[in-house]
This record gives sequence, structure tokens and C-alpha cells, in this order.
Amino acid sequence: MKDGWLNKVNWAQDGLVPAVTQEADSGRVLTVAWMNREALQKTVQTGEAHYWSRSRRKLWRKGEESGHVQKVRSIRLDCDEDVILLEVEQVGGIACHTGRHSCFFQKLDGAGWVAVDPVLKDPAEIYRR
Amino acid sequence: MKDGWLNKVNWAQDGLVPAVTQEADSGRVLTVAWMNREALQKTVQTGEAHYWSRSRRKLWRKGEESGHVQKVRSIRLDCDEDVILLEVEQVGGIACHTGRHSCFFQKLDGAGWVAVDPVLKDPAEIYRR
Repeated sequence: MKDGWLNKVNWAQDGLVPAVTQEADSGRVLTVAWMNREALQKTVQTGEAHYWSRSRRKLWRKGEESGHVQKVRSIRLDCDEDVILLEVEQVGGIACHTGRHSCFFQKLDGAGWVAVDPVLKDPAEIYRR
Repeated sequence: MKDGWLNKVNWAQDGLVPAVTQEADSGRVLTVAWMNREALQKTVQTGEAHYWSRSRRKLWRKGEESGHVQKVRSIRLDCDEDVILLEVEQVGGIACHTGRHSCFFQKLDGAGWVAVDPVLKDPAEIYRR
């Protein structure tokens, strides 16, 4: 596969697009992160989700510290070609750095945002290397 | 509910955050759009998804032209508090302006991006007013 498919993505001025990552089996949206060309290319080459960390300003293989790798089943692009959708198998069942299944654990109710999903593993345990 | 919950969202410098919208019953990710404070507030007040159109630079009630309104079942916020996740019922079963169910109809295969989902209704018919 030539690199033309990478050019079809409407990378923003900063070279990034949002990437939504959804768990294949449950349908849960796990994470939203950012990709640049290299991240998308690495994701395709390795079959594991790679993102661009805006805070650390570097390429980031999801799970490189935690072991919570995302194995990619499919990659989609939206109609405006500026958002990526990954369907993945979430290794360890934990996508969030807080130790929860999904990053979207806060739900709006009449009182405000409420954390409704449990912490499955203490982050101190996940990241103790 | 006071406005404190709106302040908990980490609005970017341009006042926006991405909003991922997922169909409640199917789990399909339908759209990714952008919200400002007003869009989120209107979404909560009315129970229908409102976004900020970056191209038209105005508040946009999803479906205002097409009739393909998104009825909101739940609203979630991620761990960094800078992405919104809506769970909706998609009126008409069509979220994309191309007449498809989801905006994510292009799938990457060995040859590049391939449109894999059918057009359910001709856009000329959807937008003929």
C-alpha cells in the first residue's frame, strides 16, 4: 500500500486529527486521542494503536508503560476525512490512566458530573516501573 | 443545576471541545463534531444535540435542516475533561450529510480508504427545502 491513503486524511494545521477508539466487543468508546501521520502509519504497520501525545510532544504507543495495548481490528475515516475511528481489542480491559475501563467515566446528572464507572486497578500498581 | 458543571469542562483556547456521538442501541459512532459552552448548554436544556459549526461559525442544532435530530440519552466527559461523549437516538437513522447512517463509512483496507456503508437516502432529497 503506497502512502496516498495518508494524504487523504485532512491533517489540521498542527498536523493532527482526533482519533476515537472504540472497543470492538462492547462498543464502548474507550479513548479520544490525537494522531499525526507517523502515529497513523505506525498503527497500520504494527496493528497496535499509536497516538501523538500533545502534552509530552512525542509519539506514544498506547500501553507502552501500562501494558494496556490496543490491538486494532479496523480503521475508519469520517466524511470530512478529519477524524479517525479505531475499533480495538483493549488488552487488560483498562484504557484509562485512572485504572478504569474507559476514559468516559463521568456522566452528567442533575447534580453535575458523577464518576459512574469503577476503578478496576490502582494506577500506582499499573505504572509502578 | 447551576453552571458549575459547564466550568468543569476544559474548553480549549478557541472555546471548543470535540464531541463524539454514539448511537445508543447499535453502539455505532455516528459523528464527531465540536461544542462550545452554548452548544453543550442547549444540548442539556433541550435534550437534542447541538454543536458549534466551525465552517459556518454558528451554533447548529443537529438535524435543523435534514430533520435528522439526535435525541440525547446520556452525556459523558472523559478523564481530561476535554472531550464529550453523547449517547443518542438518531432520528431517521441517518447521521451523515452524505445520506449514510454514520459519518465513519470509509474503512481502510490494503488498497486505501473504501466506502463500505450504503447511502440510505439521496442527500438531494434530504436537503431539498
